[in-house]
Amino acid sequence: MFLESIPERIDILDAHKRIEPYIHRTPLLHSLNLNEIFGTRLLFKCENFQKAGAFKSRGACNAVWSLDDEDLEYGVGTHSSGNHAQALARAAALRKSKAYVVMPRNAPSVKVAAVRSYGAEITFCEPMLSSREQTLHQVLDETGATEVHPYNNYTIIAGQATCAMEALQDSPGADIILAPVGGGGLLSGTALAAHYFSPTTKVIGCEPSGADDAYRSFREGKIQPSLTPKTIADGLLTSLGNRTFPIIREYVNDIVTVNEASIVKAMRLIWERMKLVVEPSAAVPLAAILEEKVNTKGKNVIIILSGGNIDLDKIPWIPKTT
Amino acid sequence: MFLESIPERIDILDAHKRIEPYIHRTPLLHSLNLNEIFGTRLLFKCENFQKAGAFKSRGACNAVWSLDDEDLEYGVGTHSSGNHAQALARAAALRKSKAYVVMPRNAPSVKVAAVRSYGAEITFCEPMLSSREQTLHQVLDETGATEVHPYNNYTIIAGQATCAMEALQDSPGADIILAPVGGGGLLSGTALAAHYFSPTTKVIGCEPSGADDAYRSFREGKIQPSLTPKTIADGLLTSLGNRTFPIIREYVNDIVTVNEASIVKAMRLIWERMKLVVEPSAAVPLAAILEEKVNTKGKNVIIILSGGNIDLDKIPWIPKTT
Repeated sequence: MFLESIPERIDILDAHKRIEPYIHRTPLLHSLNLNEIFGTRLLFKCENFQKAGAFKSRGACNAVWSLDDEDLEYGVGTHSSGNHAQALARAAALRKSKAYVVMPRNAPSVKVAAVRSYGAEITFCEPMLSSREQTLHQVLDETGATEVHPYNNYTIIAGQATCAMEALQDSPGADIILAPVGGGGLLSGTALAAHYFSPTTKVIGCEPSGADDAYRSFREGKIQPSLTPKTIADGLLTSLGNRTFPIIREYVNDIVTVNEASIVKAMRLIWERMKLVVEPSAAVPLAAILEEKVNTKGKNVIIILSGGNIDLDKIPWIPKTT
Repeated sequence: MFLESIPERIDILDAHKRIEPYIHRTPLLHSLNLNEIFGTRLLFKCENFQKAGAFKSRGACNAVWSLDDEDLEYGVGTHSSGNHAQALARAAALRKSKAYVVMPRNAPSVKVAAVRSYGAEITFCEPMLSSREQTLHQVLDETGATEVHPYNNYTIIAGQATCAMEALQDSPGADIILAPVGGGGLLSGTALAAHYFSPTTKVIGCEPSGADDAYRSFREGKIQPSLTPKTIADGLLTSLGNRTFPIIREYVNDIVTVNEASIVKAMRLIWERMKLVVEPSAAVPLAAILEEKVNTKGKNVIIILSGGNIDLDKIPWIPKTT
């Protein structure tokens, strides 16, 4: 079953062993050219190369392989329009179980197709959170499936922590590690990994100012909801959860926000100089460096490129034809 | 000085040793998803990650580091609107020499800026080949610079051969290696590398049908000029040379052509599934598999992703705004 308290060091090591056969150990890449531009040493952890195109496969695999056969008999379920849905669908399929995914009616058809390609059963709902949650509960009731929340789940957090753990193994003694923050699964996992495996490394969460609930929560010391989030970084629209926030509050050094133009500029820089396709959410940490919200001069900095799932018909710097 | 005959095995090994400090040993990446689509095992040699964004850095570094200080006193020169110009400019700058690059007046400003960023001196000319050659000779006369032809030069060919050599070291016994063909520097080098280091590996050149001079030359047994080439694969517009063609004729197993729609489709597949930014020329080999011009079913296939330098404002599958 799932972890019932904040992951310990051993839980992250266990998670890594558990998921290793099903995920990529993604490379840490760099660009001398970007280092020159920013006067720093940037190492990019390429989760855009991860299975199903995002770090979410780590948590999803850890969750699915933490369940025993009886738990899995009735499958797993979640609501998500994004990378977690794909990752969970893939993990369930690999374990010959079933995934039930509740997606909003307006989810991009490319994402619906991706989830379906892994054999998940999709139930559509209205796009509001209330409808998503209600529909999911109905699906879970009807099917008996086990809920796998995208981030507010310690087993998911332990899985996401393996990403920073690998990066810190490959680049010991990094000064700073930057991760985007949406619901906080990746950021809380990153903070735990740094705490256990590289305690001198500072952890900074990077968030679009159009969805700055984590920034506000961090400053006010209690969870602030994400009311009308609006950002191109579509992986970062969610609010923190009661399992991610306490970890972030304790182990994250700072949260900074960036504007939309910087996200697009940073994304383009990564495409152009690193030759990597990343989604807007993945570009948020570099945007923070662009905006000088984080002082990285002369430092060794790890940036988690969270994913590469983007609709290639919609490149944000290319004007839409009408 | 430059090699005066077809590179031997030792010349390629020497080239590799010579350029190793200045180039990346690029990874061979794969995608299970693409393997499933095509029923084959594809390994992509990522020269889009190469210094200056393309395999051209191999030949250019081999050429520049094959010259002695006296040769280099007056610099090196070439005409090119593309990746060779950037690669040569970079190599010359690293050896504290000077690069003179003749570029057509209509060269994209992004390419002019890239060449200039490495400190090369640019002379503009009319876009016809005759003007490019004439202007280059004038520049070479005035400066005393040594000409470094983009492909019709054995030292360049030996440098480009290191790419396939590395790939064949990393994936011994590959059944097929596919490379795009323009002037034939990469393809002739690839064929020599296979001949010396993996003689059972078949070498196939892949060319846009809109610039099919290598295909016609290969079939007719003598060099056919590239008269009015028209293709999105802007790295493949040139004709074969009298040094590349004999190698291709002897050591390449076949040359196949592909249409423009397949190139765009293949390029998009590489962006979408591999999360790699590659230029259209680099997608030509996968286009050949898409069109079933090469039988790769069940085989181990190496594809050389020749480069990643593309104007990100012009994505070929996105309609232009007017």
